[in-house]
Amino acid sequence: VPTTRLEAFSDGVLAIAITLLIIDVHVPEAHGNLGHQLGQEWPSFVSYVISFAIIGIIWVNHHALVQHVGAVDRTFLFLNLGLLLTVAWLPFPTAVLARYVRHGHDAKVAAALYGASMMTVGIAFIGLWSHLARTDTVRAPDFSAADARASRRRTFVGPIVYGLSVAVAFVSPVACLAIWAAIAVYFVVPLL
Amino acid sequence: VPTTRLEAFSDGVLAIAITLLIIDVHVPEAHGNLGHQLGQEWPSFVSYVISFAIIGIIWVNHHALVQHVGAVDRTFLFLNLGLLLTVAWLPFPTAVLARYVRHGHDAKVAAALYGASMMTVGIAFIGLWSHLARTDTVRAPDFSAADARASRRRTFVGPIVYGLSVAVAFVSPVACLAIWAAIAVYFVVPLL
Amino acid sequence: VPTTRLEAFSDGVLAIAITLLIIDVHVPEAHGNLGHQLGQEWPSFVSYVISFAIIGIIWVNHHALVQHVGAVDRTFLFLNLGLLLTVAWLPFPTAVLARYVRHGHDAKVAAALYGASMMTVGIAFIGLWSHLARTDTVRAPDFSAADARASRRRTFVGPIVYGLSVAVAFVSPVACLAIWAAIAVYFVVPLL
Amino acid sequence: VPTTRLEAFSDGVLAIAITLLIIDVHVPEAHGNLGHQLGQEWPSFVSYVISFAIIGIIWVNHHALVQHVGAVDRTFLFLNLGLLLTVAWLPFPTAVLARYVRHGHDAKVAAALYGASMMTVGIAFIGLWSHLARTDTVRAPDFSAADARASRRRTFVGPIVYGLSVAVAFVSPVACLAIWAAIAVYFVVPLL
Repeated sequence: VPTTRLEAFSDGVLAIAITLLIIDVHVPEAHGNLGHQLGQEWPSFVSYVISFAIIGIIWVNHHALVQHVGAVDRTFLFLNLGLLLTVAWLPFPTAVLARYVRHGHDAKVAAALYGASMMTVGIAFIGLWSHLARTDTVRAPDFSAADARASRRRTFVGPIVYGLSVAVAFVSPVACLAIWAAIAVYFVVPLL
Repeated sequence: VPTTRLEAFSDGVLAIAITLLIIDVHVPEAHGNLGHQLGQEWPSFVSYVISFAIIGIIWVNHHALVQHVGAVDRTFLFLNLGLLLTVAWLPFPTAVLARYVRHGHDAKVAAALYGASMMTVGIAFIGLWSHLARTDTVRAPDFSAADARASRRRTFVGPIVYGLSVAVAFVSPVACLAIWAAIAVYFVVPLL
Repeated sequence: VPTTRLEAFSDGVLAIAITLLIIDVHVPEAHGNLGHQLGQEWPSFVSYVISFAIIGIIWVNHHALVQHVGAVDRTFLFLNLGLLLTVAWLPFPTAVLARYVRHGHDAKVAAALYGASMMTVGIAFIGLWSHLARTDTVRAPDFSAADARASRRRTFVGPIVYGLSVAVAFVSPVACLAIWAAIAVYFVVPLL
Repeated sequence: VPTTRLEAFSDGVLAIAITLLIIDVHVPEAHGNLGHQLGQEWPSFVSYVISFAIIGIIWVNHHALVQHVGAVDRTFLFLNLGLLLTVAWLPFPTAVLARYVRHGHDAKVAAALYGASMMTVGIAFIGLWSHLARTDTVRAPDFSAADARASRRRTFVGPIVYGLSVAVAFVSPVACLAIWAAIAVYFVVPLL
């Protein structure tokens, strides 16, 4: 598989996952006071925005990764499918979070599921960078093993913070929302 | 990120958003008089056509924008993700509008939500043109800062008309449908 | 818009519309006799296969069309969006047909809707070929106006047969299924 | 149709089918004990992972096939559409399996449907390799008829094992899950 086809397929999956998020923002059923009902749906809107931002950042990071790949081997191929599996999964914890974030103990479970799901994305990225660090034939010529290890090191921030948010979830699910939004802002803002 | 990959990802999101619109056109549930029930569903059909036309026009305008980009920087990347966030959102207000356009006060809220959603798309476009006007390194060589400012100026028409339609919504939601259809026709007809 | 981007966006919409068809094949709800229930769902399966074949043939014909386009103008762009609007619509009449094909009078309405929807696809194709026949600047150099008119003439078969099937629908919806399957086979078999 | 457009369209359908799998993983409805309910949903999660892995492997194999195609003829085109029809179908048996795998006799029917669906994918692949073996004008210059026959022979493993799993389904649906997971692991693991 050439890099371009891998990239096209990955872009396809990421584009679909990011656009499917809106399917889980449900149209209010009951009639009478639509404005009030839309106000009640804020968890859906916040979840949509956070997950959209996170998948957008995943797409940017995925591109940065593929840029340093010279030749795709089958291990890379399946590690990449593993990453896509974790990203295509995200609409589910997003929908669970949107539904349960205001429901006591369930909110804690929903936030923990969301944090854990995000953590697996980060672990999949670490697997890809590790493979790049180990395998000379996969790296692009101008990208050293040391460069790949440096990228892997930076990638650890994600799964560690998301892992911590799993613990925070059992204390305060709303604090998790703040942490995830902060991570997204952390990635986006300094660049504006 | 090279322009081509940005364009491919954006095209993917736009193609999915435009095709997902049909998911919210629901098959009538009750048996007995399908013809009558389909007739009752005209708001779904009108909403489908208007939103399809609008996203189609967004796609054409997005291409016109990217054509003038020489090199994508990270600010452009995230402003573009912001635009995609507002477009991928559109199936939701479309479905809300289709459901509530015939229901008194709720129709006003639904139309206002729709108009406001369209306005955010326009604002995202203005942000992209502004960045292009400000940043010499992002513009294509044959596109001047003055050209970008001219494009930004023309873009203001959209959010202003959509913003006005938010106010109109609270008077007559059906008048909004007419305004939005008129904008779409305004963009499409002179070209035929 | 260059031909390649038009083709990529159209391919995206067609690929999504064809894959979304499966969403309307519903998992049986009640427990107890899954085999029997799946047997009862044959209209969903037949509709899925017919619509899949038809959209597949649309894709092949769309490629044959775009192959003869030298330069896309804005009229072509919007006529193409019109075609995509009619194709992205198809999952809806497919789902209506699957649900109502065994329900007396409703079956007639459902079959008529399906035939009429297919007819609009054919009309959109005729519009595109007509524009190609009229506009020298859009045709590829090796494709004459007479060639385009010949293609347009062949295209009339589709909307005429589908139009006739709308009339047949009010006599026998099942006969329509046979007609549509026959058209699909007519396009596919001689090529094997 | 040039190979690149065939590949782009096929990638699109495969990317959408693989990402749509998550739509059938449903958010638990009742409130009170989300953790327990998520635990009850393990069949959905297992089905998601197995089907994702299988479609991922299909994508890899499809690429290996197209790599050996020099010029697409219309027979290849329609055989390829046949393959896509069988793959785009997979979210349905996946959802049926997830719902019924723990329900006595229904579980057997669901597992048989899943195995039979996978078998049709394999048969579609055999059809494509056979056409490649028979048709000199379709094969790439560096790929002999004998090579194509060898590939076809290897492809038989899939439909045979899946066909056997249909029989196993009526004894033990859970054994089928193990067989399918084993096939997926068989394809992926030796490569790591």
